[in-house]
Amino acid sequence: MEKRSYIGIGLLGLGVVGSGVAKVLWKRADMFAEQLGLPLSLRKVLVRHPAKHRELEVEPRLLTTRFDDVLADPTVDIVIEVMGGESPAKDYIQQSLVRGKHVVTANKEVIAKHGPGLLALAREHCRELRYEASVGGGIPLIAPFQQDLAANRISAIHAIINGTTNYILTRMANEGMDFSAALRQAQELGYAEANPANDIEGTDAAYKLAILATLAFRSQVRPQDVFQEGISRLGARDFRYARELGYTIKLLAISKEKNGAVEARVHPVFIPSDSLLAQVGGVYNAVQVEGDLVGKVIFYGRGAGAEPTSSAIMADVLAISRNICCAGLAPAWLRSDRNKAIIPVADIETRFYLRMNVADSPGVLAQIARILGENQISISSVIQKENDRQAQTAEIVIMTHPARESAMQKALKEAAALEVVREIANFIRVEG
Amino acid sequence: MEKRSYIGIGLLGLGVVGSGVAKVLWKRADMFAEQLGLPLSLRKVLVRHPAKHRELEVEPRLLTTRFDDVLADPTVDIVIEVMGGESPAKDYIQQSLVRGKHVVTANKEVIAKHGPGLLALAREHCRELRYEASVGGGIPLIAPFQQDLAANRISAIHAIINGTTNYILTRMANEGMDFSAALRQAQELGYAEANPANDIEGTDAAYKLAILATLAFRSQVRPQDVFQEGISRLGARDFRYARELGYTIKLLAISKEKNGAVEARVHPVFIPSDSLLAQVGGVYNAVQVEGDLVGKVIFYGRGAGAEPTSSAIMADVLAISRNICCAGLAPAWLRSDRNKAIIPVADIETRFYLRMNVADSPGVLAQIARILGENQISISSVIQKENDRQAQTAEIVIMTHPARESAMQKALKEAAALEVVREIANFIRVEG
Repeated sequence: MEKRSYIGIGLLGLGVVGSGVAKVLWKRADMFAEQLGLPLSLRKVLVRHPAKHRELEVEPRLLTTRFDDVLADPTVDIVIEVMGGESPAKDYIQQSLVRGKHVVTANKEVIAKHGPGLLALAREHCRELRYEASVGGGIPLIAPFQQDLAANRISAIHAIINGTTNYILTRMANEGMDFSAALRQAQELGYAEANPANDIEGTDAAYKLAILATLAFRSQVRPQDVFQEGISRLGARDFRYARELGYTIKLLAISKEKNGAVEARVHPVFIPSDSLLAQVGGVYNAVQVEGDLVGKVIFYGRGAGAEPTSSAIMADVLAISRNICCAGLAPAWLRSDRNKAIIPVADIETRFYLRMNVADSPGVLAQIARILGENQISISSVIQKENDRQAQTAEIVIMTHPARESAMQKALKEAAALEVVREIANFIRVEG
Repeated sequence: MEKRSYIGIGLLGLGVVGSGVAKVLWKRADMFAEQLGLPLSLRKVLVRHPAKHRELEVEPRLLTTRFDDVLADPTVDIVIEVMGGESPAKDYIQQSLVRGKHVVTANKEVIAKHGPGLLALAREHCRELRYEASVGGGIPLIAPFQQDLAANRISAIHAIINGTTNYILTRMANEGMDFSAALRQAQELGYAEANPANDIEGTDAAYKLAILATLAFRSQVRPQDVFQEGISRLGARDFRYARELGYTIKLLAISKEKNGAVEARVHPVFIPSDSLLAQVGGVYNAVQVEGDLVGKVIFYGRGAGAEPTSSAIMADVLAISRNICCAGLAPAWLRSDRNKAIIPVADIETRFYLRMNVADSPGVLAQIARILGENQISISSVIQKENDRQAQTAEIVIMTHPARESAMQKALKEAAALEVVREIANFIRVEG
C-alpha cells in the first residue's frame, strides 16, 4: 500500500455533467473519505472560459484552460473526462493513460469508436480506464457485463437506451400525438436538443449499443457495424395499429450472437405490449440481457442527467481509488456496525386497505368512520357491496389516507368491538 | 503478482446449487482460464454421502465427508459454501477465513444473521467474503450496492425477492384462484417446498431484506429488525377489490431511511397496477432502489434456481480470482479484438409490420400476398380498413411471420411497383 494523504482528481470539462461531478465531490467529501480511508481531492479543472460565471463555485486557482497543466500535475491520480465529443477528448484520454493516470470517462462516442484500443493502452501502462457513465446514466451496466455476468454466455441484448426518443414515442403512444408535435414538446422540456438528429436518427443509441455489444460478446462491435434507422417516419396511425394488434412501438437497440457471429441494430420495433420493455415510459432507459446461466435480467433507470451520470462517474472513481489504496478490498463501511436506529413498525405511516363484513343496516359506515376519525385516520375511498341477504351482512372496503400503524391497530380493535361489525376480514398496507 | 499455475476451489455442498456450480466450472473451464490468464481448479468437494449416485460426475478422489480435508488443503484458495442453513455453514465460513481462504457463499441466513461479523473477520485476515448469490439469484444486487451506487445516499428499497410467493400472488391475481389452490399449484411445479412456511410467512424475504438494507443504509439491519407478515390471509376478494381500485397485491420487502433511522418490513401491499413492480409476474424477482443521485433504478431477473445462482457465485469467484492474480485489473477479454463476424442486416430475420395505401378495388390483397409468397414471406394477420372514399384508397396492414430482411426489401420494392399500391406507408420490424 502506498503512503499518500489523498487521491487527486483532474476534471476535464465543467459543463452540466462536470459541474454535477464537482458538486458531488464537494458534497460527499466526508462519505468518500470514510469509504476510502482517505479523501478525494480535486486538483485541476480544465475549462474553456475560466472567467465565466458559474452557479457552482470552484476555487479559481484550480481552473485552467491548458490540458497540459492537468497532465503535468503529479498530484492528479485520476482524470475524469466529461467534455464529450471525439476530439480532443480521445487525445486527452490517451495522453493521460500514457502519463500514468487512471481515466474515468462518460464519453460514449470515444469509447464506442476507440474503446478497445484505449483499453489496451491502459493495460500497457497498468492503469484503469472506466466508462460506466457512457451508457445508461447511473444504471449499472458496464460493471455487470464486466463482472456480475462474467460467467455467462450472453445471447441477446434488447435495450431502450435513448431517453429522448423514448419520451417522444411514449407521448405518441399515449396521446396519439404525431412525431413533430411530440418532438417539439420534448425540446420545450429540455429532453431533446435544438438539433435532435443525433438522438432521433439513432446515432446516440448506436454508440451505446456498440459499447454494450463489445462487452457482451467479447468481440469489437464498432458504431459503423450497427444498422441504424430513426423514428421520424413513424405516424400516429402506426401507433393505433400497434395497439390494436397488441404491440407498442419502441426504438430498440438490439444485438445478438448467432453461431459465432454478431448482429447489431437500432430501429423502431413492435414489441408485445405486455412485455416489461413496453412498460418503460418517458425518458427512462432499460437494458434487457439474456445469459445462458442467469436467464433474462433487466436493468432500469434514468439514462441521462447530471446527477445519474455523476453517480456512475463517482462509482468508477471510487472503484479505482479502492484499487489504489486498498488493493480492491471491500470498502470499510461494509463492516457496518449498527449505527442507525430501527423504526418500530408501530411508528410507520402507510395508507391502508380495509375489508370488513358488517351488519346490513343503516349507520354502520358512520360508526366505523367515527372510530377511524377519532384515531386521526382519514378515509380516501369506500366501496360497499356484495350484500349477503340471507346472513344480512354487507361488505365494506375502505382505503385510507396515510396513517400510523399504531393508530390503525387501535382503530381496528375498536371497530372489531362494534356490534355491527361481524369481522375485520383483512387489512393490507398500500405503497406508492 | 504471485507465481501460481491455477486458482484452487473447495466446494462445500453438492446439492442442486453445488452441482450447478461444479457443472459450470467444468463447462466453462476454457472461458474462465482465458479471462483470468490461469485456470480454476476444483480441489475438494465436501459431501454427506460420497457413494450417492449423482447425475453430475465428479472425480471420486475430490469428494470428502470431512470439512477438515478442505480446510487443510493448501491448494484451496477459495471456498464456495452452498450447503445452506445456519449451522455448520457459519462455522465453516469462519474457519475458512481464519485459515486464509477467500469465501463465496450463497447463504442468506448466515449473511443476514452474521454478515457484519464475518466481513470483519475477513478483513482481519485480509481475505474476501462475497455473497452475491445470497439475494436475487443471478441478478446483480450486492455488487451494485457495494460499488455502482456507492456515491449515493439510498433512501428506499422496494423489492420482490421471493419467487414462491410472487408466483402464488400472480396466479391469485390473474386467475382468481384462492391461496391454497395457488400454493398447491406452486408445490406441484416445484416452486414451493412441501413445507412452504419459510417462503409464505416472509422469513426468506426478511433475510434477504436484512442483507440489502445493511448494505444500502450502511448500518446493520438484523432479520429480527424486519417486521414480517405472510401472504396466507389474502383472499380472492382482496384481489378483486385491488383490481377495482387500480392496484395489484404483492409481497414487498421494504426498507427506508428517514431522519437517520431505518424501517424494514416484509408484508403484502397494494401497489398501483401501472407501476413496474406490479408487472413483475411469476417466479421473477425485482429490486427497486432509490438513490439521491441515480434516482430510481430497478434490477429484474430470476431470483432462484441452480443456474442463476451459479452465475452469481461464479461472478464472485472470478472477481476474487482477478484480485488474486491481477490485482483487480479488468479481465483480459476487455482488450476485445474483433474476433466475431458482424451479420449484415440483410441476413437478419424478423417479423414485419407493413402499412400500405392501396387502390380500393378487388384483388389488391391477392396481388400483394402473391409478391410476399414469391419472396418466401408468409402473412400472419391482415387488417384492412379506413377506406378513403374520395381518394378511392384503402389502408392495408399486414403482420408477417419471420422473414429475411433482404427478402422483405425485395418484396417491398416489387409491391411498390404494383399499379394498385399507392404507397408503402411504413414497415416496422417486430421483436418478441
